[in-house]
Amino acid sequence: THRLLTTRDALDPSNPVLNELLPSEDGPVRLLAVLDRGLVEARPELPAQIEQWAESNPTSVRLVGDVLTVMGGERSKQDFEVFEQTTRAINDGGICRKSFVLVAGGGAVLDAVGYAAASAHRGVRLIRLPSTTLAQADAGVGVKNGINAYGKKNFLGVFSPPWAVVNDTTLLTSLNDRHWRSGLSESVKVALLKDPDFFDMLCSRAADIRRRDLDVMEQVVHRTAKLHMDHIVEGGDAFELEIARPLDFGHWSAHKLEQMTGFELAHGEAVAIGLTIDLAYGAMMGLVPESVLRRTRRCLLDMGFRLSHEALADHETLLEGLREFREHLGGRLTITLVREIGHPVDLHEIDLAVMRRAIEAIQQAGINEGSRAG
Amino acid sequence: THRLLTTRDALDPSNPVLNELLPSEDGPVRLLAVLDRGLVEARPELPAQIEQWAESNPTSVRLVGDVLTVMGGERSKQDFEVFEQTTRAINDGGICRKSFVLVAGGGAVLDAVGYAAASAHRGVRLIRLPSTTLAQADAGVGVKNGINAYGKKNFLGVFSPPWAVVNDTTLLTSLNDRHWRSGLSESVKVALLKDPDFFDMLCSRAADIRRRDLDVMEQVVHRTAKLHMDHIVEGGDAFELEIARPLDFGHWSAHKLEQMTGFELAHGEAVAIGLTIDLAYGAMMGLVPESVLRRTRRCLLDMGFRLSHEALADHETLLEGLREFREHLGGRLTITLVREIGHPVDLHEIDLAVMRRAIEAIQQAGINEGSRAG
Repeated sequence: THRLLTTRDALDPSNPVLNELLPSEDGPVRLLAVLDRGLVEARPELPAQIEQWAESNPTSVRLVGDVLTVMGGERSKQDFEVFEQTTRAINDGGICRKSFVLVAGGGAVLDAVGYAAASAHRGVRLIRLPSTTLAQADAGVGVKNGINAYGKKNFLGVFSPPWAVVNDTTLLTSLNDRHWRSGLSESVKVALLKDPDFFDMLCSRAADIRRRDLDVMEQVVHRTAKLHMDHIVEGGDAFELEIARPLDFGHWSAHKLEQMTGFELAHGEAVAIGLTIDLAYGAMMGLVPESVLRRTRRCLLDMGFRLSHEALADHETLLEGLREFREHLGGRLTITLVREIGHPVDLHEIDLAVMRRAIEAIQQAGINEGSRAG
Repeated sequence: THRLLTTRDALDPSNPVLNELLPSEDGPVRLLAVLDRGLVEARPELPAQIEQWAESNPTSVRLVGDVLTVMGGERSKQDFEVFEQTTRAINDGGICRKSFVLVAGGGAVLDAVGYAAASAHRGVRLIRLPSTTLAQADAGVGVKNGINAYGKKNFLGVFSPPWAVVNDTTLLTSLNDRHWRSGLSESVKVALLKDPDFFDMLCSRAADIRRRDLDVMEQVVHRTAKLHMDHIVEGGDAFELEIARPLDFGHWSAHKLEQMTGFELAHGEAVAIGLTIDLAYGAMMGLVPESVLRRTRRCLLDMGFRLSHEALADHETLLEGLREFREHLGGRLTITLVREIGHPVDLHEIDLAVMRRAIEAIQQAGINEGSRAG
């Protein structure tokens, strides 16, 4: 069972969602709370809220130790520091396999703390409260966790489904515009792959989302998370034993762009560009209707994404991303595009000359768009 | 699929067993070999043998880097050192999820290297060549791996089935008598729980085993490993979500005795004592026929086990092992005994006064046995 719940104010003592996830027939469960420092800075009341929530549910939960605050962002998974802080607190707090770790934060913190929780006692129960749009819509519902090592993202980690994912959309309201938006490129991606109605909805509500309509955002996040989760649960390849990974649509260049820009581009921003590069390639190869590329660009621009970046000028470095992606897959390249919305197609060979033209076209269109906007 | 193969001279180029485990349809697989230093000291020719084996199978395997030799014994899992050496070699060697790590060594090295292999890329393929009787019969076929942390055995680790376990019984011939024997208490344990015929065979062949008859040993190790593996695969609780863990019969006191003696008692030696303590308790409580206790003691003594130790005099420290075992299980105590050979029974309460008498009786019987033998 993979539990995904969408709510608001999850820590309000009158909200039963978290409480109902805890099996309390044998008395209150022990729970260690771990928070992303970035989230605590935006919401300094959060540690006290967690304590109040636990105090008002004494028959179902008992907090162990103090709420642990760990550094946020990619640094949290650059080494074993957050992993070690978490496993130590699990040990100190007497957290066993029937106890819980509750982690609230961005994707990187969920990854590092998740790896720690999956390793301690070979796996304690984990409830994730993703705090960014990207984490709520995508990474937070996955079964992966891990940290970076030897210069490689997620080199160390395990597959381990969480006990539950609770998407508290209230947490999204403290994000700045960039991070409010950035996860939505994953919504566009998964809608292109799997759900034409959802794609239409995203196109028609893009401007509302940009104006920070929380009701619309909540629908979008929930549907994206559900599509990602269903793919993992029903796709029959949760542990990525197969070569094809359709959810990586647009990601070969996105990963490389993040790296080329020293992570100045957020993951979701890079994915927005990556999707349009692959669709432009597909259109040039006659595989993808021009209209799909055009609608996708329009939707992303309406959401507020920038679809160009100076890093695109360095084609050759960017194209190394294709080689790295192939190695990551274990030797055989598979790039997923769509031939129509809702109809994915896998490519195993890429014409590099055409891909260079696609990158140029996206860069040029972005520059034109930028000068129009300016 | 959980592959368990028993062979001799696995690395002899004419032995097809290892080779047949490697999927070579897409060309030779990359393979990193990791060896237990203790094993290499006993068999200095081993690294060269691995190289020769790989060279004589160029269409199926390609060794990456040098054969990695790591420290052996419990120290290998006391910290992240062996884990780190292994993950670094996996990275340096370009080992991907379709590549292999081959690890040969005792249980501790299998655990530490297994955790590294399960974490790198979230899991590369692992072939285990256990080199001790204990590892071949028991630990090597399991799905657990891990390292110690915060003073707790196996505090960090994951469940991860190996690609295959190859029991090369030739490796057992370089063990000293103690380690040749010590894993056999796990054979007696699993025979008591599950297989009366096997128990009879162990009793009748105990002296042959003591005389180092490799043919008998091979039968015993294979049957023990198979019984452990079937329990894991068919028991429906590979990941230990349930409270009852019948394979831990005799282990609450064994774990504590290892600790109390600073690991001077090997795990299997401690299990031999632990089994007789629990059977003596069962007999005193009228749960276990005296004959089962008597036959089990005779069988273990014939194999060459000592069934007493001065540490048994410290009842109170030893009894702390019960509390620690309960905590490890997550709060509810379950001790598995047998009411007849092949018929396990779970106890959830222990009469401590009776358990003290059982410990004394085992200690006294061992002293008598020792003075008779001397």
